[in-house]
Amino acid sequence: MAEHDSSVGGSAVESTPVEEESQVVSPWEVSAKAGGKIDYDKLIEKFGCQRLDQSLINRVERLTSSRAHVFLRRGVFFAHRDLNEILDVYERGEKFYLYTGRGPSSEALHLGHLVPFMFTKYLQDAFKVPLVIQLTDDEKCMWKNLSVEESRRLARENAKDIIACGFDITRTFIFSDFDYVGGAFYQNMVRVAKCVTFNKVAGIFGFTPEDHIGKISFPPVQAVPSFPSSFPHLFAGNDNLRCLIPCAIDQDPYFRMTRDVAPRIGYQKPALIESSFFPALQGETGKMSASDPNSAIYVTDTPKDIKNKVNRHAFSGGQDSIENHRKYGANLEVDIPVKYLSFFLEDDDELGHIKKEYGAGRLLTGEVKKLLIEVLSKLVERHQKARASVTDGMVDAFMSVRPLPHMFS
Amino acid sequence: MAEHDSSVGGSAVESTPVEEESQVVSPWEVSAKAGGKIDYDKLIEKFGCQRLDQSLINRVERLTSSRAHVFLRRGVFFAHRDLNEILDVYERGEKFYLYTGRGPSSEALHLGHLVPFMFTKYLQDAFKVPLVIQLTDDEKCMWKNLSVEESRRLARENAKDIIACGFDITRTFIFSDFDYVGGAFYQNMVRVAKCVTFNKVAGIFGFTPEDHIGKISFPPVQAVPSFPSSFPHLFAGNDNLRCLIPCAIDQDPYFRMTRDVAPRIGYQKPALIESSFFPALQGETGKMSASDPNSAIYVTDTPKDIKNKVNRHAFSGGQDSIENHRKYGANLEVDIPVKYLSFFLEDDDELGHIKKEYGAGRLLTGEVKKLLIEVLSKLVERHQKARASVTDGMVDAFMSVRPLPHMFS
Repeated sequence: MAEHDSSVGGSAVESTPVEEESQVVSPWEVSAKAGGKIDYDKLIEKFGCQRLDQSLINRVERLTSSRAHVFLRRGVFFAHRDLNEILDVYERGEKFYLYTGRGPSSEALHLGHLVPFMFTKYLQDAFKVPLVIQLTDDEKCMWKNLSVEESRRLARENAKDIIACGFDITRTFIFSDFDYVGGAFYQNMVRVAKCVTFNKVAGIFGFTPEDHIGKISFPPVQAVPSFPSSFPHLFAGNDNLRCLIPCAIDQDPYFRMTRDVAPRIGYQKPALIESSFFPALQGETGKMSASDPNSAIYVTDTPKDIKNKVNRHAFSGGQDSIENHRKYGANLEVDIPVKYLSFFLEDDDELGHIKKEYGAGRLLTGEVKKLLIEVLSKLVERHQKARASVTDGMVDAFMSVRPLPHMFS
Repeated sequence: MAEHDSSVGGSAVESTPVEEESQVVSPWEVSAKAGGKIDYDKLIEKFGCQRLDQSLINRVERLTSSRAHVFLRRGVFFAHRDLNEILDVYERGEKFYLYTGRGPSSEALHLGHLVPFMFTKYLQDAFKVPLVIQLTDDEKCMWKNLSVEESRRLARENAKDIIACGFDITRTFIFSDFDYVGGAFYQNMVRVAKCVTFNKVAGIFGFTPEDHIGKISFPPVQAVPSFPSSFPHLFAGNDNLRCLIPCAIDQDPYFRMTRDVAPRIGYQKPALIESSFFPALQGETGKMSASDPNSAIYVTDTPKDIKNKVNRHAFSGGQDSIENHRKYGANLEVDIPVKYLSFFLEDDDELGHIKKEYGAGRLLTGEVKKLLIEVLSKLVERHQKARASVTDGMVDAFMSVRPLPHMFS
């Protein structure tokens, strides 16, 4: 699965056809119109997915008898495809499975990388369903020109961070493509590949004839975890099981292709629940760049790193003087501390209070940043503790090809 | 591996860039210039391989202390790449391995399909080396639009015919791509795919942007059995082991690509020993068509089938009347009974005698055909007996992923 960088502007690896004037969103590039923000309404229209509205959130809460996750309540996951059908299935007492993934291109994850996993963990817990997590080490080997060995090593390292998010080992199968591609999975790759021409992937992903055939071959690899028959050790005899994919919306092209092919090979279309991008510290128009560690908070950052990054680099919507700030208040639309708090501060009342006070100029940027530093430090510390307790044996256990007899209970 | 149909004209599935005026030779199409024969000299020049000359045949005989196979002595295998290097390796007391394959697109093989396997068996026996046989069921699924299940079934059926050729189970690993692709093999596929652009495979194989990405993805699948690291259960720690590929010359494009990529990923180039095509009964300009069972002798044919096909359809170089035949003799250049005898009649003296007498008009076509019917009936009967004794357990044994501890002894 392509690393989506979860920033407003990912590092540009490929040009792409999904362009609205200068807005570009593909699995390898996310960039807004010059100086602006990503226009998510346009993206929904362009991609043809649906907005995730309040009635659907209410239905999720009703069916799971639990409060919707912050990322749902606050519109981080804002779009979907056929989520209603998944809920229909669930309401009838049938089950589904979750599929998400990560392209392991870096040693340490940043907070944006955690977003889909935190949300997926919530979905797993709320619906009590199995989950497959694909580590696309093959993709990163090809796109980032890493060696096979280095890509596989990064996959295992990233698996530790993923496991640290708290997934239930009795319901979770994590796999690396370099390890798992083969058998039923490969057979499905061939079934998909037969249905998609070069012209088609050129249109969807922006491939050109100068691209290597590894890239051109890859989309089926990310497509087939959408089909239960790719996991005979989990879902044998359950070929009609529905699949729900939580992911950032830059991954939509893969699953548009998958949904197009599915009925032609007798399979169910996967459903999607799609997030917006996690902004860079420098603001939603900035780029979260792998070469600039100050553009993101990493899960390996120390409290001091976090303090410095937030204080020095987090773009403020506050006014240029205390006088003006007291007078006009902060511009919450562009303020990164408030954005980050809306991802990671659980308490709706507290968040509402901060936004009100900050917007009215009664809270200063420094005070909001101090609060954010506390929230992030606690989050990162918790992650680091959890990750430190993940042993190689646990990675082996999550990644072993095995039945999960209790995955639906 | 593409079925080469082993005929002068295989069924045309793809257009191809390897064209000399109207001569076309690709893994999916073999056709001579209108009304003519394949010009093998031109092919050697075009492909850039070497002619297999008498001194190399002598060297093979010396090194193996055995008579060269009929197919070598009579120029059926007529071209090579780096065969001399393989012989150097062997002479130094080092080893190599053999790799050949088949695209399982039909239930029953014809005699042309047996040619590479009969020759490979000779090489295995003469050099006492291990052999991997790839059944490209994935390729046939994609090119012939067979279902995955039907392709896999045909792979197992064809494996029985291959085993019936007498391969040594202690030195032979047969695998189906649908079963075996994965792990180290898939890792090598990615390494190869990274080095080859769409433009490159378009140039080599004639792919177009309208082709599906399954086809475009396939060449690395046929490439990587050339690398010992694709078979860790056989060759772990032996990454520099050389590979020799016996195949029909229409497969050369795959291995040109493979040899081009090999040094870029730190691997040895495979060597090749390449055959001409087995002619159709209707003559070297005819097509051996899957839709015309009378164009070939199948290993499932009865003695009566063989008799009828040879008598009715084998193109004769004899004259139109007995008088003329006695006067001018047969044209051996176009005579199919003599061609077929030169493949399957072991005795050089007997063959020489027949050619002399037939060419001088002292033997009639009917007499030569009678002899051919005897030879072919015996060959086919022997094959049918051998195949009938191949059990499913034997297929499983040949295809099981296992070490071969005695493969070099």
